Amino acid sequence: MKLPQVVIVGGGFAGLYAAKTLARSPVDVLVLDRRNHHVFQPLLYEVATAGLGAIEIAEPIRRILRRQTNTTVLLAEVETIHAESQHLVTRDGRMIPYDYLVVATGAVDSYFGHPDWRRFAPGLKSLDDAMEIRHRILVAFERAELTDNPAEREALQTFVIIGGGPTGAELAGAVAELARHTLVDEFRRSQTRDARILLVEGSDRILSSYPPRLSRKACRQLGHLGVDVLTNSIVTDIDASGVTIADERIPAMTVLWAAGVRASPLGKSIGAPLDRAGRVRVEPDLTVPEHPEIFVVGDLAAIDDVPGVAPAAIQMGRHAARNIIASLEGTERRPFKYSDRGSMATLGRSSAIAVIRGIRLSGFLAWIAWLTIHILFLIGFRNRAIVLFEWARSYFTYNRSARLILLEREE
Amino acid sequence: MKLPQVVIVGGGFAGLYAAKTLARSPVDVLVLDRRNHHVFQPLLYEVATAGLGAIEIAEPIRRILRRQTNTTVLLAEVETIHAESQHLVTRDGRMIPYDYLVVATGAVDSYFGHPDWRRFAPGLKSLDDAMEIRHRILVAFERAELTDNPAEREALQTFVIIGGGPTGAELAGAVAELARHTLVDEFRRSQTRDARILLVEGSDRILSSYPPRLSRKACRQLGHLGVDVLTNSIVTDIDASGVTIADERIPAMTVLWAAGVRASPLGKSIGAPLDRAGRVRVEPDLTVPEHPEIFVVGDLAAIDDVPGVAPAAIQMGRHAARNIIASLEGTERRPFKYSDRGSMATLGRSSAIAVIRGIRLSGFLAWIAWLTIHILFLIGFRNRAIVLFEWARSYFTYNRSARLILLEREE
Repeated sequence: MKLPQVVIVGGGFAGLYAAKTLARSPVDVLVLDRRNHHVFQPLLYEVATAGLGAIEIAEPIRRILRRQTNTTVLLAEVETIHAESQHLVTRDGRMIPYDYLVVATGAVDSYFGHPDWRRFAPGLKSLDDAMEIRHRILVAFERAELTDNPAEREALQTFVIIGGGPTGAELAGAVAELARHTLVDEFRRSQTRDARILLVEGSDRILSSYPPRLSRKACRQLGHLGVDVLTNSIVTDIDASGVTIADERIPAMTVLWAAGVRASPLGKSIGAPLDRAGRVRVEPDLTVPEHPEIFVVGDLAAIDDVPGVAPAAIQMGRHAARNIIASLEGTERRPFKYSDRGSMATLGRSSAIAVIRGIRLSGFLAWIAWLTIHILFLIGFRNRAIVLFEWARSYFTYNRSARLILLEREE
Repeated sequence: MKLPQVVIVGGGFAGLYAAKTLARSPVDVLVLDRRNHHVFQPLLYEVATAGLGAIEIAEPIRRILRRQTNTTVLLAEVETIHAESQHLVTRDGRMIPYDYLVVATGAVDSYFGHPDWRRFAPGLKSLDDAMEIRHRILVAFERAELTDNPAEREALQTFVIIGGGPTGAELAGAVAELARHTLVDEFRRSQTRDARILLVEGSDRILSSYPPRLSRKACRQLGHLGVDVLTNSIVTDIDASGVTIADERIPAMTVLWAAGVRASPLGKSIGAPLDRAGRVRVEPDLTVPEHPEIFVVGDLAAIDDVPGVAPAAIQMGRHAARNIIASLEGTERRPFKYSDRGSMATLGRSSAIAVIRGIRLSGFLAWIAWLTIHILFLIGFRNRAIVLFEWARSYFTYNRSARLILLEREE
């Protein structure tokens, strides 16, 4: 007897947890992703700033699911969804039918109508992005050591991070730590502690999803680390030599983008209504209107009061899988309800802000909470012990050990 | 008072140990390398086969030398040496004068008059090479899982390693381990244990620098691992779909090159006599004829009975530095004498061959010796503990944890 085919597109948090939840169900599960690995996204900024290596926060999807015998994993990029005839088409022309579909392709960086900025200001959504950012940061310090021109050195030691959300704040803090601590005694001709790190935010405060008091504390903590926080500052231009904020020109050889995301373009091909950011408006059971066999979960799904964070993606992935099981068993599907267990952002070495079950924390205590939760949460991840070891080591030595400049991308 | 300027080109074993030996001497040391990191080359094959991550075998050169205050490290590629006027010119046009020069730029892959083969059969000299090989191996297994065409699957699961020296043997053993153990329970449509791993050697035995009895043992050990060893086999063609050995065509999507090296092209610009492999013929004190201020060390130097292995490079680097110190102090320079402490090659999981102070070892005992020496030898390397941990883990679990396919290089 042929079992119902459940196809899951995307091996991020939402897709992975949907697959895991179906482990013991009478279905054939097929997981498709254009990358072979699941990434622990909350720590991408650590890879981008050389604190952790790529392998420490990623694991092949097929490794994670290897004992789940009803599940096949394929490396393939899905290009279109044909909702009426219930099949997908991959980039290399393969046709894949499904009985149930879970779309979990997440978000991509959005440059607000300036797609040309991407080249000058990479975002941080994948390991490839993280390696690109790491490369740019490390090369900038190397070139600052090489040059004899003071203006060029200053531009090379200026790092502009655009967007004051958690990703921007975490990147800014980690770049500051790199410049002020890690690299300090390694350069002879340049002073890495002269580096300027600018965190540019368009609204009137950074980390605006947190209460105003924690925003202010975060701003102060970043200041201590050596980050200049510019609020109410709108970027009007970015090119190869710097950024323009309103009318002010800031020469900077490294510009990073953390200002906004939009939904992955695959959402559009479902044919369902989208919100302004391109996310698919889902029904309470996480399906698409008129297609109870198509679920959309994670950052691609638009649903009221659910933020784009890892715990929400995991909960949605699990919930979609449970609703598929309900349909198979002939019981009733349930509406999705987000359980907010809190959120946290780290700000460089030994400082963070957090809201956990309504309790507000900042400083060292929040950082300990952040550390504990992130270590516990590195799921089926092999590398828990190594990450812990790396962190302990870099905490005491200030070293960031992943500082390798590979040549590949230049050639 | 201006101190004598010692310029060291290349941060491999020879260059690095030359720099370290000058730590307390009254000289200004400048180390130039086109990469920012020193690599523990004997373990490159582990990175190429996903057993270790790149950061576990590399360390920024400026990190290693950070406490050595008479030393500056610059990221720069040297293009020409002007021996008469005692200066270098870098690729970006910078002119660098020297009083003493140590050239340690090593070797590059040699394709014996077929430079077009490089594209189809990458060699293993740098971390970039290792990442490229890792990418090809992992993508081949993924594509074998995707295809429905049996002939295509067979070509995707055929891995041809050309060259039966230590690098070729180590690569072949590690690819066999990946296919026969690590990946076995992760694929559903393809059988990774069906993979063919061919080690192709032109002469009549592999590992010909070892005694014939050890060669035979190595051949048998590789056979147990699932490697087909083809001796007396000359490759006559390589293209995108396979290799030709004499008149036989072998379809293979992954071909790796370990068949030969020649000296780095920088040697030529010194103007000194070269040997057939392009290496610089040095005087007994490791200098170039008529230029007692230019030392050539490591794989770039041609000197009788000194093999191209890491311990020889380290000894030459140290010796050149000591001869510079002798000149500064007005004492006599000494001729270089290679102290052969043995050599070893590992053959997949828990097997190796070794000659240590004349004692011949093979099998598990040789592997324990190999492991001990490599761990002790991971110099000022931060990562000794992590490498040990990774090895212990992968030994007991058969996992190889660095199996990430990054997209960058395809786009």
